[in-house]
Amino acid sequence: MHRLDEQMRFIAEIGRLKGVLRQTALAGDGLNRRENSAEHSWHLAMMAQVLDEHAPPDTDLAKVTAMVLLHDLVEIDAGDLFLYADAEQQAKQEAAERAAADRLFAILPADQAAALRGLWDEFSARQTPEAKFARALDRLQPMMENMNAGGGTWQRHGITADQVLAKVALIEDGSASLGAFARDLVCRAVASGILQTPAQPSDAG
Amino acid sequence: MHRLDEQMRFIAEIGRLKGVLRQTALAGDGLNRRENSAEHSWHLAMMAQVLDEHAPPDTDLAKVTAMVLLHDLVEIDAGDLFLYADAEQQAKQEAAERAAADRLFAILPADQAAALRGLWDEFSARQTPEAKFARALDRLQPMMENMNAGGGTWQRHGITADQVLAKVALIEDGSASLGAFARDLVCRAVASGILQTPAQPSDAG
Repeated sequence: MHRLDEQMRFIAEIGRLKGVLRQTALAGDGLNRRENSAEHSWHLAMMAQVLDEHAPPDTDLAKVTAMVLLHDLVEIDAGDLFLYADAEQQAKQEAAERAAADRLFAILPADQAAALRGLWDEFSARQTPEAKFARALDRLQPMMENMNAGGGTWQRHGITADQVLAKVALIEDGSASLGAFARDLVCRAVASGILQTPAQPSDAG
Repeated sequence: MHRLDEQMRFIAEIGRLKGVLRQTALAGDGLNRRENSAEHSWHLAMMAQVLDEHAPPDTDLAKVTAMVLLHDLVEIDAGDLFLYADAEQQAKQEAAERAAADRLFAILPADQAAALRGLWDEFSARQTPEAKFARALDRLQPMMENMNAGGGTWQRHGITADQVLAKVALIEDGSASLGAFARDLVCRAVASGILQTPAQPSDAG
């Protein structure tokens, strides 16, 4: 097949990401619906443009942007898994996502398939500054949407402040200042009553 | 206001782009709805990653990507205008978009406001290779969606092949190979009956 035809087939195929729904609830004019993974990826890419000064020095912004743009493509086959899913579900999801990556990136010409798969593997492994910063953005954005929606998935799934705080470490690992912002956001969410603290032991007795 | 707070206020505000609907109809599993401008912008940014070799040599891909990510932000205030709208509507839209750019980018710290506004102005002016390539992607993507949807906005609005071909010049101006692809796409759309040719003069008599 002609190289451009392979590229265009990939571009048509990835459009399906617009149909993959996340748990995140969007609030506001014309919204009040669940977020899809394509618009979520766009939001992360815009965050990368605006928040690049919060990444460690010498972080390659173009690489971060490419990573967040493609990080969820595997959900076209594997679907989206809720952040607070249990370990067994997480393991199943990882296997499904690897199979999806095998299928999807292979639509591209071989050199591009290897390059984009490499970025996705790097994002997943979370070892480089770029991957750590990209993962931090991916973790922070739904917290901001929940705050904006006045509770969102936190309230719908009964998630408590300690569970959210346990997820903040990954943001701190990618960016000290964004980690501090996220920690403060949790405090504000608790203070304004849209995020509950866990039940005290005495409550159960 | 603290610099990070201004950045976060901008990030929350631009999330509204997910609620701006375009004319483009999306077809496929879980879709069959109109496209929104956030997921459209994501699709363009992915096209930029995959199609960069079709831009003129030395085109700055990072700049193209930033441009397509932010090019539609002004629609948060101005809404989306159909490509085939008349000249009066187009002029009104341009004024509304400039006012929107004045408001939106000013939410950011001054240095970032100037940088992002500069990218948007460059995109609009379509003078640089980056702007021409970004505009070509923006013109090509809805044609691919219409093809994928078996007609889409072409059929709904009675758009004919000559009208679509008149829009291909802008793609050719950004990329010779993508222009040729678009021209061929129009031919295939006519051949498969999903895009009509204009009525012949004799039909009107």
